[in-house]
Amino acid sequence: AVAAAALAVVAQERSFDQLYAPIQPPKSVDLGKVELGKKLFFDPRLSQSGFISCNSCHNLSMGGSDNLSTSIGHKWQKGPINAPTVLNSALNLAQFWDGRAADLKEQAGGPIANPGEMAFQHTLAVDVLQSIPAYAREFKLIYGKDKIDIDMVTDAIAEFEKTLVTPNSRFDQYLLGKKDALTKDELAGYKLFNESGCVACHNGPNLGGNSFQKMGIVEPYKGAGDGRAAVTGKDADRFSYKVPTLRNVELTYPYFHDGAAWTLAEAVDIMGRLQLGRKFTEQENAQIVAFLKTLTGEQPVFRLPILPPSNEKTLRPRPFD
Amino acid sequence: AVAAAALAVVAQERSFDQLYAPIQPPKSVDLGKVELGKKLFFDPRLSQSGFISCNSCHNLSMGGSDNLSTSIGHKWQKGPINAPTVLNSALNLAQFWDGRAADLKEQAGGPIANPGEMAFQHTLAVDVLQSIPAYAREFKLIYGKDKIDIDMVTDAIAEFEKTLVTPNSRFDQYLLGKKDALTKDELAGYKLFNESGCVACHNGPNLGGNSFQKMGIVEPYKGAGDGRAAVTGKDADRFSYKVPTLRNVELTYPYFHDGAAWTLAEAVDIMGRLQLGRKFTEQENAQIVAFLKTLTGEQPVFRLPILPPSNEKTLRPRPFD
Ligand code: HEC
Ligand code: HEC
Ligand code: HEC
Ligand code: HEC
Ligand SMILES: [Ca+2]
Ligand SMILES: [Ca+2]
Ligand SMILES: [Ca+2]
Ligand SMILES: [Mg+2]
Repeated sequence: AVAAAALAVVAQERSFDQLYAPIQPPKSVDLGKVELGKKLFFDPRLSQSGFISCNSCHNLSMGGSDNLSTSIGHKWQKGPINAPTVLNSALNLAQFWDGRAADLKEQAGGPIANPGEMAFQHTLAVDVLQSIPAYAREFKLIYGKDKIDIDMVTDAIAEFEKTLVTPNSRFDQYLLGKKDALTKDELAGYKLFNESGCVACHNGPNLGGNSFQKMGIVEPYKGAGDGRAAVTGKDADRFSYKVPTLRNVELTYPYFHDGAAWTLAEAVDIMGRLQLGRKFTEQENAQIVAFLKTLTGEQPVFRLPILPPSNEKTLRPRPFD
Repeated sequence: AVAAAALAVVAQERSFDQLYAPIQPPKSVDLGKVELGKKLFFDPRLSQSGFISCNSCHNLSMGGSDNLSTSIGHKWQKGPINAPTVLNSALNLAQFWDGRAADLKEQAGGPIANPGEMAFQHTLAVDVLQSIPAYAREFKLIYGKDKIDIDMVTDAIAEFEKTLVTPNSRFDQYLLGKKDALTKDELAGYKLFNESGCVACHNGPNLGGNSFQKMGIVEPYKGAGDGRAAVTGKDADRFSYKVPTLRNVELTYPYFHDGAAWTLAEAVDIMGRLQLGRKFTEQENAQIVAFLKTLTGEQPVFRLPILPPSNEKTLRPRPFD
């Protein structure tokens, strides 16, 4: 709340707009890695069952999320936490709700080996890819080595994920000078978002993703767990989470790390009360929600990748062991 | 075997090539329905869990199949039978292994309501779609009615499926006059395929899909179930299945209705022994397999559809009830 007040003062002088930035189209990606990483992102053979791919839980038809409170993993296990979107996640200061992975490359190794997600071993995943000649050739072409390793796999996936940005939302058009890109209600919502203090935590190009903050500052949050403390070991970091991006938030329901809030109206109401001690009127709430919907950008559009087939040497999926 | 011999005689006169036909690109589809049907095919909200779409089991990145022996359905239930490809399935005389659905439209209602697959009710699936304004508008535009019904849903999916054809395989290039489209070994395999009698059952544009035949003519098949008898009630139809298409068979492993054979070599060996009483040499087997791989056509290529988001009126997924 103190940070919010301080920021608000600065911002009113320099105009709140300066606290945000438009999403940039991806710059200087390695297109070979991107195409390979896209295949891997869609390939369920990175899971023990042969049924679950990155796209199962970060569905790029649905805002890079699964729209479930907590994910469904190997053998229909109920996951512990809500799956954040992969859209614009390259812009986040760290990956996962508690920031335990420094970047996308480090992150991507996690789910493959997580027993509750893809439940596979890195060595086995690599063996599967190595057995498929079209993959073996593509890795060799890009990484110049005969043997695939897990580092190449996560590197290619991370490079693909860098392309998953969503420029040209109406809010970005507004920031870039198209002052009539937002309606009156959306502008009123933007003003409330700034002046009530949401911007203190949800700022920068991702409107979030650049700090860890306590969930439940003014009032405690029922579902709050260890959060960031699991990484730092500090008691002060209990109940703290990476502030989620609000980019495409219209698409990434349900909300919060436990996926407990199904509507933006509910999420905004909770944020107002728990983080700022402010109860918004119905109209104010609707205006903020209207503003948040202007953050939906252009979704990454690409052709569904065609995957090279397995063969007699390929380890078979084991969905039911 | 009798049919095989008869056909073989006819064929030798008119040339075996006449018993097949190239896959035609789709003709006169309704493009509005195709785009809508594509979204529905990829939309997991047609399932109770919100996690399983048609594409989960008929993955268009993987030959329109799931490459599992039997499918994984709602709550990770093990399905009773191998998922056939949706590629070129419009060309089949009927749908399902036992032909219990007359066409794609009739078929598409099945999995949505099947408790072991998507486990949803048609009325609830329709309610979900109706609650989403972008869907409601798209249905209204195409079908001219204010209320969506399940018939429209299956009609649009079926129209999309009609586009899932795979023209221009090397075999089709050969049929269309490019006589050097096949290598010497592939041609030898084609000759064996014709002369040993595979063509008796695997003929027409789909190299199958146009008759029901007993599995285990010369020797019984261990995994054979009721098959077609479940539909006709006739004892003579026990162990009979729709002859699967061999189009893209390189991509649709594992093989047979129980998904028990993982390699083409194994499937060809079993077919030779059980259907024709013939044990192929290793070289013959390899040549037939080489021929079968020339049946891989151009995979349908399209942009991953972006799905319109749910809202506060949309029934929520129930993955764990
Ligand atoms: C079974 C569901 C599931 C699968 C499969 C899955 N994820 Fe995730 N993903 C999650 C969940 C849940 C989280 C949040 C975990 C946490 O924060 O502790 C997450 C977090 C992430 C994040 C961090 C985003 C952020 O802003 O913090 C990225 C990036 C990501 N996943 C990418 C991937 C990639 C790449 C794959 C495949 C290699 C993958 N995921 C597979 C469920 C899944
Ligand atoms: C002091 C920091 C802070 C302030 C101020 C703040 N937020 Fe948040 N916001 C967070 C954190 C942390 C989370 C994640 C909490 C969790 O998941 O448990 C979050 C989550 C959200 C979410 C859910 C996003 C998702 O994808 O799950 C929305 C929407 C949101 N905030 C909007 C707002 C609005 C609107 C305001 C102002 C009324 C606001 N926030 C004020 C820190 C803050
Ligand atoms: C949980 C897995 C699963 C899901 C989800 C699923 N299918 Fe299937 N599909 C199968 C299986 C298994 C069969 C074979 C069933 C049989 O023959 O008895 C099949 C058969 C078919 C066939 C018949 C093909 C042929 O040649 O006989 C078509 C077409 C089809 N499905 C389309 C769809 C559509 C459209 C959807 C979504 C509305 C869908 N499927 C959802 C597993 C699934
Ligand atoms: C008398 C009919 C008949 C003859 C002759 C026949 N098949 Fe089949 N074929 C079938 C039937 C029926 C099936 C499905 C059996 C099942 O799934 O239980 C099948 C399945 C297959 C499959 C597996 C396809 C899949 O997707 O599961 C292959 C491959 C195949 N046949 C190749 C051949 C070859 C090669 C020959 C000749 C050596 C041959 N068939 C001869 C009727 C026949
Ligand atoms: Ca970093
Ligand atoms: Ca979410
Ligand atoms: Ca199969
Ligand atoms: Mg999927």
